[in-house]
Amino acid sequence: MKNLVVIVLSVVLGTSLLFIRPSYAAGLAVKEIGSFYVGGESVNIDMSEEEAKKLNLIDSTGKVYSPNGTYETGQMYVNYVLLKKTKAKYPLMMWHGGGLCGSTYETTPDGRPGWQMFFLKAGHDVYISDSVERGRSGFSMSPYIFKTQPQARSKEEMWTLFRIGSEYNGPAGKPVAFPGTQFPLEYFDQFAKQGVPRWTDTDPLIYAAYLKYLDRMTTPSVVIAHSQGCKFAMQAAIDRPDKVKGVILLEPYTPLDIKKFDITRMKETPLLVIYGDFLPNYPAWVKWARSIKDTLTDPLIKAGGDVTWVDLPSVGIKGNGHELYLEKNSDVIAQFVQDWMTEHKLMK
Amino acid sequence: MKNLVVIVLSVVLGTSLLFIRPSYAAGLAVKEIGSFYVGGESVNIDMSEEEAKKLNLIDSTGKVYSPNGTYETGQMYVNYVLLKKTKAKYPLMMWHGGGLCGSTYETTPDGRPGWQMFFLKAGHDVYISDSVERGRSGFSMSPYIFKTQPQARSKEEMWTLFRIGSEYNGPAGKPVAFPGTQFPLEYFDQFAKQGVPRWTDTDPLIYAAYLKYLDRMTTPSVVIAHSQGCKFAMQAAIDRPDKVKGVILLEPYTPLDIKKFDITRMKETPLLVIYGDFLPNYPAWVKWARSIKDTLTDPLIKAGGDVTWVDLPSVGIKGNGHELYLEKNSDVIAQFVQDWMTEHKLMK
Repeated sequence: MKNLVVIVLSVVLGTSLLFIRPSYAAGLAVKEIGSFYVGGESVNIDMSEEEAKKLNLIDSTGKVYSPNGTYETGQMYVNYVLLKKTKAKYPLMMWHGGGLCGSTYETTPDGRPGWQMFFLKAGHDVYISDSVERGRSGFSMSPYIFKTQPQARSKEEMWTLFRIGSEYNGPAGKPVAFPGTQFPLEYFDQFAKQGVPRWTDTDPLIYAAYLKYLDRMTTPSVVIAHSQGCKFAMQAAIDRPDKVKGVILLEPYTPLDIKKFDITRMKETPLLVIYGDFLPNYPAWVKWARSIKDTLTDPLIKAGGDVTWVDLPSVGIKGNGHELYLEKNSDVIAQFVQDWMTEHKLMK
Repeated sequence: MKNLVVIVLSVVLGTSLLFIRPSYAAGLAVKEIGSFYVGGESVNIDMSEEEAKKLNLIDSTGKVYSPNGTYETGQMYVNYVLLKKTKAKYPLMMWHGGGLCGSTYETTPDGRPGWQMFFLKAGHDVYISDSVERGRSGFSMSPYIFKTQPQARSKEEMWTLFRIGSEYNGPAGKPVAFPGTQFPLEYFDQFAKQGVPRWTDTDPLIYAAYLKYLDRMTTPSVVIAHSQGCKFAMQAAIDRPDKVKGVILLEPYTPLDIKKFDITRMKETPLLVIYGDFLPNYPAWVKWARSIKDTLTDPLIKAGGDVTWVDLPSVGIKGNGHELYLEKNSDVIAQFVQDWMTEHKLMK
């Protein structure tokens, strides 16, 4: 009788715990969620009322205001989610493209888990930054700290430049999409809400902050970068081969300045370059992809580097534009990247 | 013998599962991390090159550029962390103050877990937004979408207005802090990096987005708001008593417009108002706190509302300035808020 009670209690205990466990396993066991700011410096502004007037520094009550004082400028915001137990060897950084910020790697415009959740579930600590003057990094006042004006990207430009379709203001005022596009068309405005104005002459500031960010990490990282972010990722892979142990470039467009960067420095670093579909529909993309071959991947292969170049349609993944990491088949492309990381020994 | 095997197996099973469980319990069991954009609308810009020139729309190559096209404006970014199992009845929203964005509730400037982690660990789903035109919400171009210029807050102004000390440029050029301040002084620049420029005439846009955000939620919420955010939180508690089930105001300064808002509508909503230390050191704060008593809490008490007013020094918590939720004793104040929520039946 006593034995029976023990058996029953033990089984109930075991079973109830079994019942609780899978509910944890289905989600994420997270050690810490947090953020930090890195880089930047203090700057002092000292101008006369006359100068303030000339710069049209008028407050909402119509009065000239003085911007004199000390400000931080050039800093970068970094958000992180750390797992209790990782399967990846290194943290995974996600560097966004121009006119966007880190939010683009979170939930997709059509409300599905984005690459942040995908790679967390695959066992990576994930770090997402907003580049200098974008999003939570904050911007500096123009034209008295930054010297130029910011620019915003219109929906018309996003539609065509990002290869969603041929024209935004098409027949009957409706956008014309490419047949077979993977972009979640009915959520285009949701995507457009992610847009942030950008300064076009801040690349040196942004790159300086990325280097400080890599240097602040206590371990090397793997970097996924998109569009404008790719320029900084390829440069950083060369400048910090000890800090960047793998690079995934999504639709890079800026050629590497081979006079300034010695590509042999990244020849031990596995590199994956991914382009979507419809490149000839926006001919500049064919030219940009060619310039990446000419300045980055061809020289790197020649130097004995580990390069994987993927045009998605050639591996049967069709219909993607520039924003491939958030389009309807984003999980398929994420899995492709994950498999490449496994093959390249970036997982434990 | 068979019984013994079953007992042993059952106990081993139960114990091993017990052994695994605490490693999850020490961190967070997270269901989902994500974000969305809410509110905003499409706006079309159509101007001549002459007008663009007059607005000084010059790109980095020195050429006039056309901003013509369609843009999203007025949207708000919301980040969320959802737990596998909550202990709170409602999600907890955190609304930031002026010149900052949602990052202020994440890791503190001195690198400790901020209120986001504290309240996640206490069992709340946590939603953190960036108000319209701040941080990841993006801003609209001035002066052709937004009509005025943004303003940035200098470190000099932060230091005194936020009651960290009496002067930023003190003797020998060094900042003078209040004796006993809880602000992590050696991390003041880290805090200043959180600063984002703000427009001073966007309150109606911001409030509209907060209402859309509350309406988008499928359940009511509890709102923690700081500084400028308090204005929107008190208004929303009145406009949406079905959506706001508890309000915690940290250092509000804008009196309620009692001609426009019927305070009796929030009389079922528990309200906690918290002020820090050193109010008389910056006399406007005494006046601002008085205006909150006059327009919000006194009338609400008169109407039979559930109001808790706390001057932290009066409960033995000393040395806090305006940024009390991120100062060195931030966990002590968070625990105070958590206890208040428990007392006010906001936990399961």
